Amino acid sequence: MHRSSAELFDQRDVERIGGTVAQRCDALARHSDRPDCLARTFCSPAMKSAHAEITGWCAASAMSVQLDAVGNLIGRHSSSSQPPPSQPLSGQPLSGRKQRDTFIIGSHLDTVINAGRFDGPLGFLLGLGVVELLRASQIELPFDLDVVGFSEEEGVRYRFPFIGSRGIIGTFDPADLDRIDDDGIRMGDALQSFGCDVDAIKSASYLAPESPRRLIGFMEAHLEQATALEASDRPIGIVSAIAGQTRASIVLAGVAGHAGTVPHDQRFDSLAAAAQLILRIEELGRNTDGLFATVGNVSVLPGLSNVISGQSVLSLDLRHASDKIRMEALKTIRLMLLELRKERGVVGSITHAEHSPAVPMDPVLKSALYDSIKDSSDRADDAPRWAGPELISGAGHDAMIVAMAVPSCMLFVRCKDGVSHHPDELVTPGDITIALEVMTRAIVRFATAYQPAAD
Amino acid sequence: MHRSSAELFDQRDVERIGGTVAQRCDALARHSDRPDCLARTFCSPAMKSAHAEITGWCAASAMSVQLDAVGNLIGRHSSSSQPPPSQPLSGQPLSGRKQRDTFIIGSHLDTVINAGRFDGPLGFLLGLGVVELLRASQIELPFDLDVVGFSEEEGVRYRFPFIGSRGIIGTFDPADLDRIDDDGIRMGDALQSFGCDVDAIKSASYLAPESPRRLIGFMEAHLEQATALEASDRPIGIVSAIAGQTRASIVLAGVAGHAGTVPHDQRFDSLAAAAQLILRIEELGRNTDGLFATVGNVSVLPGLSNVISGQSVLSLDLRHASDKIRMEALKTIRLMLLELRKERGVVGSITHAEHSPAVPMDPVLKSALYDSIKDSSDRADDAPRWAGPELISGAGHDAMIVAMAVPSCMLFVRCKDGVSHHPDELVTPGDITIALEVMTRAIVRFATAYQPAAD
Repeated sequence: MHRSSAELFDQRDVERIGGTVAQRCDALARHSDRPDCLARTFCSPAMKSAHAEITGWCAASAMSVQLDAVGNLIGRHSSSSQPPPSQPLSGQPLSGRKQRDTFIIGSHLDTVINAGRFDGPLGFLLGLGVVELLRASQIELPFDLDVVGFSEEEGVRYRFPFIGSRGIIGTFDPADLDRIDDDGIRMGDALQSFGCDVDAIKSASYLAPESPRRLIGFMEAHLEQATALEASDRPIGIVSAIAGQTRASIVLAGVAGHAGTVPHDQRFDSLAAAAQLILRIEELGRNTDGLFATVGNVSVLPGLSNVISGQSVLSLDLRHASDKIRMEALKTIRLMLLELRKERGVVGSITHAEHSPAVPMDPVLKSALYDSIKDSSDRADDAPRWAGPELISGAGHDAMIVAMAVPSCMLFVRCKDGVSHHPDELVTPGDITIALEVMTRAIVRFATAYQPAAD
Repeated sequence: MHRSSAELFDQRDVERIGGTVAQRCDALARHSDRPDCLARTFCSPAMKSAHAEITGWCAASAMSVQLDAVGNLIGRHSSSSQPPPSQPLSGQPLSGRKQRDTFIIGSHLDTVINAGRFDGPLGFLLGLGVVELLRASQIELPFDLDVVGFSEEEGVRYRFPFIGSRGIIGTFDPADLDRIDDDGIRMGDALQSFGCDVDAIKSASYLAPESPRRLIGFMEAHLEQATALEASDRPIGIVSAIAGQTRASIVLAGVAGHAGTVPHDQRFDSLAAAAQLILRIEELGRNTDGLFATVGNVSVLPGLSNVISGQSVLSLDLRHASDKIRMEALKTIRLMLLELRKERGVVGSITHAEHSPAVPMDPVLKSALYDSIKDSSDRADDAPRWAGPELISGAGHDAMIVAMAVPSCMLFVRCKDGVSHHPDELVTPGDITIALEVMTRAIVRFATAYQPAAD
């Protein structure tokens, strides 16, 4: 911690390691369960071979590597200023002993079907890059830095996301081990075959009383999956919150009838009412700053071409950084249903609403990122291009789960045309290098201000 | 033909037989394939037992009964003024021999699932009633009168309607015998088990060169399935045409995207475009006199709550008595697609359009019905209540098929609230009796003007 922030690194190391991270995004994309596209799901053969390649990269940086009980791959960069790792006595809390303070950088290694190269792996590989840049710059941290490749974020295999991050903070419910995939394979068996000790599922948690570790923070980098950075011509942006979300079903009950005999002025057409509602919800989204309001599906009964629809069921997805505004939007939609009832005699009701509150990112970690962007911009003499806008993440991420337990932050990296979950996903090596520099600076800044917990 | 039209019948016979027709609608409804509701499908056990009960009614009126090769039940009221029925030599056309002129009254005996008592059976049973009223009134016709219970109009069992009427006019394609129902039973096998001679499928046709019959006209009574008669306070109405119909699919191609990351002003939401189109099509239907324009179904891809829809497929059903107006409506919808493309960047196209032209009813038979309504109204001294409006049938009927080959007419009978395809279907005995009187008068009027074909 003896260098000025501007001189922290040799810029050639930053460029070299940034280039390596970009190349490794390509290399990991070759580990796919399908020959025709990139698809790497939870505990699959491609995940196994990806882990093997990553283990080689970790070893080259003197990191220890382990697979935890929920399938996360953890590359550990240990601090020499911490006490030696201690093994807990089985079931004994570590109170009274020294736990090792640990910061995690990570993202997920699983992908959707027909995925791009960056969604997930980029955040993990930037974590490895941070370790390599710290080593190249001979910067010692006062805490361990774990680079975690989460096992399952997309929820493809078991239609159940965030298995890895839930495991890390101890909120994975072992009852979910009984979930079955499309091939009839139990999640517990999939983990066991993958080499995980499912009988010790709680050992994955950094927050269990008997854990030898004290989790002090979490950082995730991720491609933006939107175009705010591209539109403002910035390479990176700090996430201020992950949006809250309401998922609901709306049932519209009309009266089925013969498409050739019931005159238009005597119809109670549920699909026409649904159409009006979809447009009004869209208008609400357009007119409410920061609100995402989406109807992604309609199911129609009886759904026959020659029958006026009797019932339509709409899916509703509402997201906003402010829980208050989101709940107001939901209230507005309830009023829309009353209007439709008056206008059309079609009776609407909201069923099965689930609400996830907005998750704000940690102010201290956000400041570390902000100051680091400023440092990097100063170094590059290019301030206006680096200081990106604060962003709301409309998508869920592992950081959303981890932030429930420990201070967390997210950095978004610009992606071309906002495309994600598609082979056309593109993040440039230049932007990756900028993210690498900023993340490493932020870890160093956080470390400078860090006070180890008293025994 | 020696009585004045007003004195044609003893009114007590009309009332008695009208009551019998109404009672038989109830009786037939007890023949159901399901214990919980009325469902009587093509060649089912309930159809067999219904045929047995009907055969008894026909025998009581000295009618001969036969099952034809496509499952129609034919009750024959033979005219003594016709030559004796001749059996054609196999494959030999009957040219040079006398064919027996035959008029058909009929409707279908199959029902939808959870049906009402009147849709189909009413028209058949009114045919039996006509025979009984002719007999009671000792009126001799110069042609045979066949009362046909069509085997399949609704298309429930093989998702293929009009099997019976296609068979009668010789347009049933034997290739359709290979259709399979939900239980894997071939149509040909179902007919064979039902007692039909499927190897002689063409023998069902009244229009085959070797047929011993010459089909001279067709009449079908049916409940209205709409409320025009109820609204105008009339018991019956003459159908002037069966509406032409266009069935089409409309594909709207947008761009799928993340419901939490793609801002509203950057979306190409196919479902929102579909909503706009549905409302514009509805508006077109409302603003075009006599047009029925219905979107009965939408299928959304990927159809997930958290994904902006990439593709929506709409069903379209357009009906109008004028083919010109219907095709103009379709053209207007094509223009709507161009507008949507400009407004939203969502690309729409019409695929798989099928067009059935409007089928006008025969003017001579319509006149016979009209004059008969006038006669009956004069007799009852209640003209304004009987002379119903001319109606367009928006629904398809067996008459639509038969009219392609021979002069045909339809009489609609008022039904409560326009309800059909539902247990609440209701036609009053009073209206049934009026329909019986008018139909019988119309047959007599037609017979009076009838000129037998020369040999």
